[in-house]
Amino acid sequence: MTANSRFSVGNNTHEPKAPIPVNNMLDRNRDEKLAQPGQEPTCESEESAGIVQTQHVRLFSDSQKMVLESGQSLGPIDVAYETYGQLNQQRNNAVLIIHALSGDAHVAGRHNPDDTKTGWWDIMVGPGKPFDTNKFFIICSNCLGGCMGTTGPSSTNPATGKPYALNFPIITIGDMVNLQAELLNHLGIEKLLAVTGGSMGGMAALEWAIRYPQRVASVIPIATTTRLSAQGIAFNAVGRNAILTDRHFQKGDYYHTDQFPNAGLSVARMVGHITYLSEEAMHTKFGRRLQHFQDYQYNLANEFSVETYLDYQGSVFVDRFDANTYVYFTKAMDYYDPARQYGSLQDALKRIQSRFLVISFSSDWLFPPRQSHEIVNTLIACGKDVTYCNIESSYGHDSFLLESKLQGGLIKNFLHQMHQSLQKEITADLLTKSSPEPTHVLPNSRKIRQAGSIFEGSRVDHHQIAHLINPDSKVLDLGCGDGELLALLKQQKNIRGMGVTLGQNDILACTANGVSVIQYDIGTCLDNFADQSYDYIVLSQALQVIRKPEKVLRELLRIGREVIVSFPNFAYWQGRLQLFLKGVAPVWKTLPSSWFDKPEESVNYMSIRDFENFVHNHLHARLVKRIPLSSSNGREVRFLPNLLADEAIFVIADK
Amino acid sequence: MTANSRFSVGNNTHEPKAPIPVNNMLDRNRDEKLAQPGQEPTCESEESAGIVQTQHVRLFSDSQKMVLESGQSLGPIDVAYETYGQLNQQRNNAVLIIHALSGDAHVAGRHNPDDTKTGWWDIMVGPGKPFDTNKFFIICSNCLGGCMGTTGPSSTNPATGKPYALNFPIITIGDMVNLQAELLNHLGIEKLLAVTGGSMGGMAALEWAIRYPQRVASVIPIATTTRLSAQGIAFNAVGRNAILTDRHFQKGDYYHTDQFPNAGLSVARMVGHITYLSEEAMHTKFGRRLQHFQDYQYNLANEFSVETYLDYQGSVFVDRFDANTYVYFTKAMDYYDPARQYGSLQDALKRIQSRFLVISFSSDWLFPPRQSHEIVNTLIACGKDVTYCNIESSYGHDSFLLESKLQGGLIKNFLHQMHQSLQKEITADLLTKSSPEPTHVLPNSRKIRQAGSIFEGSRVDHHQIAHLINPDSKVLDLGCGDGELLALLKQQKNIRGMGVTLGQNDILACTANGVSVIQYDIGTCLDNFADQSYDYIVLSQALQVIRKPEKVLRELLRIGREVIVSFPNFAYWQGRLQLFLKGVAPVWKTLPSSWFDKPEESVNYMSIRDFENFVHNHLHARLVKRIPLSSSNGREVRFLPNLLADEAIFVIADK
Repeated sequence: MTANSRFSVGNNTHEPKAPIPVNNMLDRNRDEKLAQPGQEPTCESEESAGIVQTQHVRLFSDSQKMVLESGQSLGPIDVAYETYGQLNQQRNNAVLIIHALSGDAHVAGRHNPDDTKTGWWDIMVGPGKPFDTNKFFIICSNCLGGCMGTTGPSSTNPATGKPYALNFPIITIGDMVNLQAELLNHLGIEKLLAVTGGSMGGMAALEWAIRYPQRVASVIPIATTTRLSAQGIAFNAVGRNAILTDRHFQKGDYYHTDQFPNAGLSVARMVGHITYLSEEAMHTKFGRRLQHFQDYQYNLANEFSVETYLDYQGSVFVDRFDANTYVYFTKAMDYYDPARQYGSLQDALKRIQSRFLVISFSSDWLFPPRQSHEIVNTLIACGKDVTYCNIESSYGHDSFLLESKLQGGLIKNFLHQMHQSLQKEITADLLTKSSPEPTHVLPNSRKIRQAGSIFEGSRVDHHQIAHLINPDSKVLDLGCGDGELLALLKQQKNIRGMGVTLGQNDILACTANGVSVIQYDIGTCLDNFADQSYDYIVLSQALQVIRKPEKVLRELLRIGREVIVSFPNFAYWQGRLQLFLKGVAPVWKTLPSSWFDKPEESVNYMSIRDFENFVHNHLHARLVKRIPLSSSNGREVRFLPNLLADEAIFVIADK
Repeated sequence: MTANSRFSVGNNTHEPKAPIPVNNMLDRNRDEKLAQPGQEPTCESEESAGIVQTQHVRLFSDSQKMVLESGQSLGPIDVAYETYGQLNQQRNNAVLIIHALSGDAHVAGRHNPDDTKTGWWDIMVGPGKPFDTNKFFIICSNCLGGCMGTTGPSSTNPATGKPYALNFPIITIGDMVNLQAELLNHLGIEKLLAVTGGSMGGMAALEWAIRYPQRVASVIPIATTTRLSAQGIAFNAVGRNAILTDRHFQKGDYYHTDQFPNAGLSVARMVGHITYLSEEAMHTKFGRRLQHFQDYQYNLANEFSVETYLDYQGSVFVDRFDANTYVYFTKAMDYYDPARQYGSLQDALKRIQSRFLVISFSSDWLFPPRQSHEIVNTLIACGKDVTYCNIESSYGHDSFLLESKLQGGLIKNFLHQMHQSLQKEITADLLTKSSPEPTHVLPNSRKIRQAGSIFEGSRVDHHQIAHLINPDSKVLDLGCGDGELLALLKQQKNIRGMGVTLGQNDILACTANGVSVIQYDIGTCLDNFADQSYDYIVLSQALQVIRKPEKVLRELLRIGREVIVSFPNFAYWQGRLQLFLKGVAPVWKTLPSSWFDKPEESVNYMSIRDFENFVHNHLHARLVKRIPLSSSNGREVRFLPNLLADEAIFVIADK
């Protein structure tokens, strides 16, 4: 074996080799311990991806080198990759998965029947799984600079015949993406159905959409950011510092020795592991438990379980990972900053033509939800199509590797919709060629006939609101619930819609309904939307639970051409009588809660007259339409509406 | 110089030596950069503590050793300490300040007029400052195991004539406290007015109250915990690991060499610094700024400012601090766990006889507010006197070293009250000896005559509520605001009171009023209180803004003998007419907000009848008293109260 063979698998050949077991990204024991029963249900229809082989291809040669972002050239470049499922005839079902810092090409299944460990995202990739290998052609390659088969610092430098070590050029996330694009060329794939990844892989997925907007139909960036924070850079700096000051590092030129910079790499990995787990997860898993003894031993040995765990994680990592790759990958992450490259994040993201599903995790403090918000906010400001969910999970950054239920559901629904709409486009395209009808009518016409069934069980105001909305318009539904109204409007009116809601199950339901939705609080997300970027904004039965309703309504008038508001009428005759005669706070069918058992945190009470006065005297807005309603029959109330209607819909607009 | 003289100052003598400059805990440049203008106002009356000398004393000898918690013995032990201000005649104005991991005895002032750096808590200690050296006698000593003058691993082991290195016994927070107690004996101080410290110093302050309950009148634990979390232990483990695997560590026996384990200690310090700052503070201070260049240099040098900063912090730390002390101090922190030692935290804290002022900081993620809540909750459960504030600050764990405004105000008020009540006790004691009257009447009698003035400007329901409360009882005031009612009740009725409120200015005002108060949300703190632990619970004008009022009221009935509730009456005639005749939601003097400009997040509306029905039919509680009120004259309304009273007070109790 050559010096670099410890990490590199078949590095200098483009011929597929016999599969060699590669350790997967996480220690599975750890995962198994962390994952709680019931957290990751094994659906009966889900199967393993089975036995897979790592494949190898030389994409750049010594004579035809790859030009890197640094300006340097690199060649030859070999890539290790794995594929799962079949590429379909139209070649439009390919999904690229990009690994994180310590990952590799082995995303799912086993290399040998005897392997005790599966690929690093086996919970997500396989037949019937979210990345369904029965439907999609999944590709995962080891990133440029890696140590798991793709050319990196441990590969042989053709100029010297020795490993590159620190002579390996600095690589960027953009370079990794360029090499992946070359791999797709090699595989004959022009356009990806989706590209996805977590952490570093999420950065690369974002970069795909920016760099190759035509080649990516959708992007699923998970637990990631467009740029590391100062804290993120600081943690990487500590890890690199520990490696670079290790006595055995020898300026990276350690491959020929029998002493690798294991102490430094181990410290780096320990720091990493702390940042991958949430404090809560660490507390649940370890607490202050002692590993071997009942009592303190009053010596400097590792006594607490968490110490033993970190020590173990550090020690197993050095057996499978190259310290130089750790240094280069963390540097690439530090550098990643499309806002810097394109002038602003908005300038970077306005280039994209992909649909987005952005996922973050509540307890992730290394790539905190705030950083995903930045992506989502900018996409909103650019008017792009985005769905966002901040999944409640206690596992911290590691959640993206462990959480399969909601994450899996969202991805499954999203990919299904993407795939369907691509198929629709093709069908429409074929039909257009034989008929002059507009494309969007054909695929929807059948559904419109079915739409009646959707009304059954719908809220009465939805029916009325649907009448107020013109076809082919843009609709923002605040407090959209499961997306019922938007799905209806899509089918009936061919609108382009987006929902906002807080419930995670609602987000999942929306993706099942094919509705784009963001998990935001209405009161805090509105300033991201551009002026007059929607034709209609719907605030259906949500005004009662909104804090600072005046501020919110002003924002809505800025964002939408027309704002449609519905709420229960506090001056309904039943309530008036209750308070006047009985001296009790009103309670009736559409205002069902007593003061002591309200389901929502905040409740505003307003009558039709209150709202009218407010529109005229405070908002100074134009009252386009007023529809007092009877909830029992869904009809408009024309006589004494503020007395006889128990609900109302208003349409207002800026003057 | 001997091998250990690099860190130890006059280690082997108990004679005071000429002051030697000691670096202070933080790099002041850092502080000065972090602190924003206006954040730390310099009051004109505040002065520097001036020129101080570190003093040295031998407290244990080679023949008379100190027995440690580990069972080992240690001697001789020298202690370096500094004092500020004068011990008064009664010897009851002594305050002990305990330093954190990397601190020392030099808490304030300068050692030489030329010193550019002051002591590590100079913002807090000095004439006119919160720890006012005009009033108090301040003591700060270097902790056992330290490297700044107190015996530690770098001191000479009398058995070998060489530095202890890893032969130094493992020490605990309890050992540090025992040595400090010995120092107080040496200084002739029987009882401390207060003991305080942040971080590790906070642990020791807590331990003082547990270990020497008779010797501590009050405790101010800041940014601390009763036990490190798994994450805290993990960060310490990484730091120790980096030191222990450093090529120059040599099992701790490096003092005779010219190569110290600087690389490892530096990595440990870098990790430390990341954890001391909040992500927000790091972002504000460094962001993604590059230190020297406009553009990426595509090499492995430190490019980002945050990298340069950490590198610098690591490099200056190794010049002033001993790696072995770092190892021993972090181990002592890992071990600290009074719940383990006493069976439970409650068993540990029920021993204490001190008043508590607990301070945490909102952005501290190393010793997060949650850990201070644990202390506060347990003190509440034990029925101890505690004031708590979670100070809004963006500086992370470092806040305790940087934030002087609110922290300083709280401490100043608290110490003032402590000092006053001690003086009162003495006065009362003297008077008792010459007169048979009960002690509490004398100091309060003068104030009772002044109490009328307090009523001016008081809320009308306070006057009525005061009439409902018996003298010498225990009162919990939920939503206590600035503590006005409790201060009034203390003066008029000699009650023992505690307030709960969320506003930080309210907390400060309460401490100024001598009222114990905790900064908690009413809805989430109640389960800490023991059954029937209060005679009265007051919920004055707060029911309207409480989420889940039914659950809260049930809890109150459990905790208090009687629960006094006041709220505006929603069925007041003005409101009835407004809704009935005009069809608008009611608004009047005591219910002044419209639906769109409510000041509070949540508003419950209820009438007198609503509340009565609720007490009977849902709470199944006993209605002790009902006082319908007219807010205009503060009088009870006896005729048609649900129509004519605009406010109401209820007293309810469990059946």
